[in-house]
Amino acid sequence: MAAGSNGGESLIIVMDAAAAPADLEQVLDRLRAAGGSAEATTQAGRVVVAAGVPHPVPPPAWEALPGVERVFHLASPVRLVSRHHQPADSVVEVGAARLGGGGFTVIAGPCAVESREQILAAAAAVQAAGASLLRGDAFKPRTSPYSFQGLGRAGLDLLAEARERFGLPFVAEVVDPRQVEMVAGYADLIRIGSRNMSNFTLLAEAGRQPRPVMLKRGFTATIEEWLDAAEYICKEGNPRIVLCERGIRTFESQTRNTLDISAVPVVQSLSHLPVVVDPSHAAGRRALVAPLTLAALAVGADGVMIDVHPEPESALVDGAQALPPGEFAALMERVRALAAVL
Amino acid sequence: MAAGSNGGESLIIVMDAAAAPADLEQVLDRLRAAGGSAEATTQAGRVVVAAGVPHPVPPPAWEALPGVERVFHLASPVRLVSRHHQPADSVVEVGAARLGGGGFTVIAGPCAVESREQILAAAAAVQAAGASLLRGDAFKPRTSPYSFQGLGRAGLDLLAEARERFGLPFVAEVVDPRQVEMVAGYADLIRIGSRNMSNFTLLAEAGRQPRPVMLKRGFTATIEEWLDAAEYICKEGNPRIVLCERGIRTFESQTRNTLDISAVPVVQSLSHLPVVVDPSHAAGRRALVAPLTLAALAVGADGVMIDVHPEPESALVDGAQALPPGEFAALMERVRALAAVL
Amino acid sequence: MAAGSNGGESLIIVMDAAAAPADLEQVLDRLRAAGGSAEATTQAGRVVVAAGVPHPVPPPAWEALPGVERVFHLASPVRLVSRHHQPADSVVEVGAARLGGGGFTVIAGPCAVESREQILAAAAAVQAAGASLLRGDAFKPRTSPYSFQGLGRAGLDLLAEARERFGLPFVAEVVDPRQVEMVAGYADLIRIGSRNMSNFTLLAEAGRQPRPVMLKRGFTATIEEWLDAAEYICKEGNPRIVLCERGIRTFESQTRNTLDISAVPVVQSLSHLPVVVDPSHAAGRRALVAPLTLAALAVGADGVMIDVHPEPESALVDGAQALPPGEFAALMERVRALAAVL
Amino acid sequence: MAAGSNGGESLIIVMDAAAAPADLEQVLDRLRAAGGSAEATTQAGRVVVAAGVPHPVPPPAWEALPGVERVFHLASPVRLVSRHHQPADSVVEVGAARLGGGGFTVIAGPCAVESREQILAAAAAVQAAGASLLRGDAFKPRTSPYSFQGLGRAGLDLLAEARERFGLPFVAEVVDPRQVEMVAGYADLIRIGSRNMSNFTLLAEAGRQPRPVMLKRGFTATIEEWLDAAEYICKEGNPRIVLCERGIRTFESQTRNTLDISAVPVVQSLSHLPVVVDPSHAAGRRALVAPLTLAALAVGADGVMIDVHPEPESALVDGAQALPPGEFAALMERVRALAAVL
Repeated sequence: MAAGSNGGESLIIVMDAAAAPADLEQVLDRLRAAGGSAEATTQAGRVVVAAGVPHPVPPPAWEALPGVERVFHLASPVRLVSRHHQPADSVVEVGAARLGGGGFTVIAGPCAVESREQILAAAAAVQAAGASLLRGDAFKPRTSPYSFQGLGRAGLDLLAEARERFGLPFVAEVVDPRQVEMVAGYADLIRIGSRNMSNFTLLAEAGRQPRPVMLKRGFTATIEEWLDAAEYICKEGNPRIVLCERGIRTFESQTRNTLDISAVPVVQSLSHLPVVVDPSHAAGRRALVAPLTLAALAVGADGVMIDVHPEPESALVDGAQALPPGEFAALMERVRALAAVL
Repeated sequence: MAAGSNGGESLIIVMDAAAAPADLEQVLDRLRAAGGSAEATTQAGRVVVAAGVPHPVPPPAWEALPGVERVFHLASPVRLVSRHHQPADSVVEVGAARLGGGGFTVIAGPCAVESREQILAAAAAVQAAGASLLRGDAFKPRTSPYSFQGLGRAGLDLLAEARERFGLPFVAEVVDPRQVEMVAGYADLIRIGSRNMSNFTLLAEAGRQPRPVMLKRGFTATIEEWLDAAEYICKEGNPRIVLCERGIRTFESQTRNTLDISAVPVVQSLSHLPVVVDPSHAAGRRALVAPLTLAALAVGADGVMIDVHPEPESALVDGAQALPPGEFAALMERVRALAAVL
Repeated sequence: MAAGSNGGESLIIVMDAAAAPADLEQVLDRLRAAGGSAEATTQAGRVVVAAGVPHPVPPPAWEALPGVERVFHLASPVRLVSRHHQPADSVVEVGAARLGGGGFTVIAGPCAVESREQILAAAAAVQAAGASLLRGDAFKPRTSPYSFQGLGRAGLDLLAEARERFGLPFVAEVVDPRQVEMVAGYADLIRIGSRNMSNFTLLAEAGRQPRPVMLKRGFTATIEEWLDAAEYICKEGNPRIVLCERGIRTFESQTRNTLDISAVPVVQSLSHLPVVVDPSHAAGRRALVAPLTLAALAVGADGVMIDVHPEPESALVDGAQALPPGEFAALMERVRALAAVL
Repeated sequence: MAAGSNGGESLIIVMDAAAAPADLEQVLDRLRAAGGSAEATTQAGRVVVAAGVPHPVPPPAWEALPGVERVFHLASPVRLVSRHHQPADSVVEVGAARLGGGGFTVIAGPCAVESREQILAAAAAVQAAGASLLRGDAFKPRTSPYSFQGLGRAGLDLLAEARERFGLPFVAEVVDPRQVEMVAGYADLIRIGSRNMSNFTLLAEAGRQPRPVMLKRGFTATIEEWLDAAEYICKEGNPRIVLCERGIRTFESQTRNTLDISAVPVVQSLSHLPVVVDPSHAAGRRALVAPLTLAALAVGADGVMIDVHPEPESALVDGAQALPPGEFAALMERVRALAAVL
């Protein structure tokens, strides 16, 4: 059995033009020792080895072997989050809301919970405009230790109150593995933020509790790495995962990050998980939220997550990107009109 | 007169906390010597100088002066291609087609002209499906000198024949300042490609001839640099410019480049020029062309340019991204349905 | 008091050319309400506001206010890790080794502890060649959940045995806030890896224990963000921090990451903390380790951290970049010769 | 004959797990039709085709064929500029100066020629300090059309005068294919700048004239693309090429670009051409020029090109990065001391 089970890997090893026959022998010996299968072929003066190695034998460092020029790692076809593993779309239910399998789910609310008045006003506004889920964070990972870090547990209590009053399930960020259980005790959907996408201990904790998990793409992560991060959650036993594209770091400075809109169809081809878009954090500019939301809908995303604040100019966090309630309601009208023809 | 005319510049110069009074005096003296105006203010222990300097006095290197910590250059409000200079949308007419000012113009055809049969079949297909302009290149800038470089002038003759037969104006790339006049003698719209966006002599030649010009964004250019490149054309006397976003280079490798969909509304806020999207070259993968086209429409682009090839699997250039005629026709149906509600 | 204490911030707010006088008034009112000071000046048709706001009043979202075009945030001059705060170099002592304040400290050993034989052989080799610190990890954050994750606590026991036998203090990675105390009970220097640079709860824990901390640059972090991460540790009470540059993510694929050699003198100008270079993880290729080590020495780094493995081709992690003992010893000779003239 | 001659290419084509046998047949048929050779092997559930195709048959778009999942293009082993083609270092002679084959050649002078006084003072200073070549440009490609564009031919006359007086050969940039012959009539070494690295018509003209050519890396080009650009020059008959690394565009903003110091040993392993480093344009900051020059020497570069200006604070172009004569002379002392032990 080669790469036919979870975690197996397919490799292509290209030998250097000047590699000795003994170099090739060593590569083949090690592949066999690792429990893998391999076949070598010579083309255009180079020997190319196609191989499969099973989990859990750890691979030696193929690139380190004498005579090896390059190694290409093919994504495993058997990752749990992959389409190969599950061809049908996953549908993740969050309270009465559904993400995935068609439909376009709108999550909206303030970046951070700031006060009882603020979160209740925001929840009222987004519910009235037609959102299905409320967002609002009580723990904020901030670049500077001197920035506002969130209200903590008191913020979760306020979110729970808003849920009860307006009937909206809510999503909230978790930043510390020691808090996963506590946050999951409040939130309907827990979120792992962009800066924590590679916080593997946090991912594993999220995989060991029963709430669905939203996993934001690291703003500097490749799609492969993002899916590997989702695999960390899934492998621990929690397959209820929603992916969220929120822009990547590039050299362009007109927007905070560059929304990778192509990531939506790419991920949908590689994985069965639902994918939503966060236009607010991607752009960092209010004027871009509406066009990017419509683009996300047109490209086939399973939903969006939008910053809405009752008074953006007073927001403690990211006010420059938050929509006031009136603009959000107008956008929702356009979303419904467009969704009707798509 | 400070920055009130073409080319004037506004600067903010931040002095180091440890700068000496004489350092500040030198900065102010030089600003005055450059014909500019300046005012210094002290805040939070630092001196900040806000200044304006006129064109065409070249600025000294402000960063090089003793005591200067940082210099911020504000984009000139008086660039010819800017919204400040012309608040109303530019509309560029290309034969019977129009780009800008509302509407969604579809340009389609093969990446490269390969043969008479190929270009006529492609033109027939894109015209039948409803495209307004034909694309097809006779000169291809290729990364490797050993790749197919285009049919040259013979290719332009074939494009002219296709235009006559199917009534479609065409766009073709120009890669050499010595050929601008010749290519402009054939094409309805000449194109400067991504790799030549900073080929300033080519830009200037394009500005000195009467045809409209499509300027693709360099795949590693900021939006500011792209608009500066457009200014090169405009400054020479040719304001008929169409911008084309085609993806930027990032670390993500699932797509050839990362389509910067946000660039469309950003450019529309900064400039009066029309902006189209090239989903084919951005993604480099056929399956992404349809979703990205719909996203371009939804985000508010003035059009798209799509690779269509009668037989993509035989294409000499970029076949992996070309749509066959049937897929293109189906996409056009979806474009029309969506455009009707936007 | 404006930005004269920890966490204060200096801002430059540029008003839009079309901003109304009331817009400016609102900005100034809010700055005053935030306890800050501000002064407005008009240059080249724009109003520029230079302002300082104190900690801990959280700043409103200045960019969200009507009429605001751009906001420039100047780095606080009073960050604890900055040269402004402490002009003299910090020297961090780790056992008998010293980092910072001149000198060039070599840390070497395997990427991961794999077995007793391996770590003892590695420690013997690097000690014989002249290294001052041993590296070796017991917890590995891996992109894929199916990769080798380290020996855990048993690995730390082996490192402690190697320390005792060869008299070398050691550095080991910590990946989970719940393990900081345990790892710090073993290691002489605890390390926060590149993927965890923005794991703020982990940073805070590292700041609350007495061991010195090595903080690797996130491979996609700016220098500003890296220093902000160091500030998280320092703010909690632990100023014994060593920074480690290990390459950043770019579009170049010949190397795993692009070693940002310029970051060394840039960081040294901004901060008093020592900076070392990890050429092994930056390049990911053994042949580049020696030239990059010499470059790090020449550019003025305070040291290097090098992967050395007794048998690289059998390494479970990153063998392609590890030096065998003989190559490491030869490199140390060259380092000593070069250091003598620098 | 497969990839044994110039321009041949080696490919690895990975078939999709779900590909039909007929898909594989079509791939193999087309490879054969292209004059290539191919062999298929099945590993871990996938078919992998290793193939070689000869020049000049243009490759079909392999990625476009049904059932193809991925295509890896291996660099041709037979490129003229490659080490495979010529194992020994190329040495490029420029007047009495030599680049390549050991040694460390220093090129220095102002970014742009501004006046007779300026260039003569600069030439006197760099010659006295020990530089082997003078730099100074008469044609400047500038991002904005309103920036200083150089003195043109008059600048070349001044450079020729400086050469005669101080006995230093000089390098000057060429930006237009129509000027190559003219500039080459003056300069000892013509330079193609970073923004023109992919200006293929300019590259071809440089390949058709007898002067040696310095080719700067595009600041957004991969090393592969850089070598392809060099191949354009070489293929036209001019093998006297000097490569110049000058920093790449990344997200880091503390330096203008990120000097890719690793590119030096990487290029030296792939190509026989000499490689120099331009620390001035990479960093854009004077204080970084000295440490980066020493790093370039230590990493094994064949030389450096440094901006030196008699009065940097008055420079019309890039004064912030230019060294004044005294600092340059001090740096040359350190270079000589370091070179003695390397």
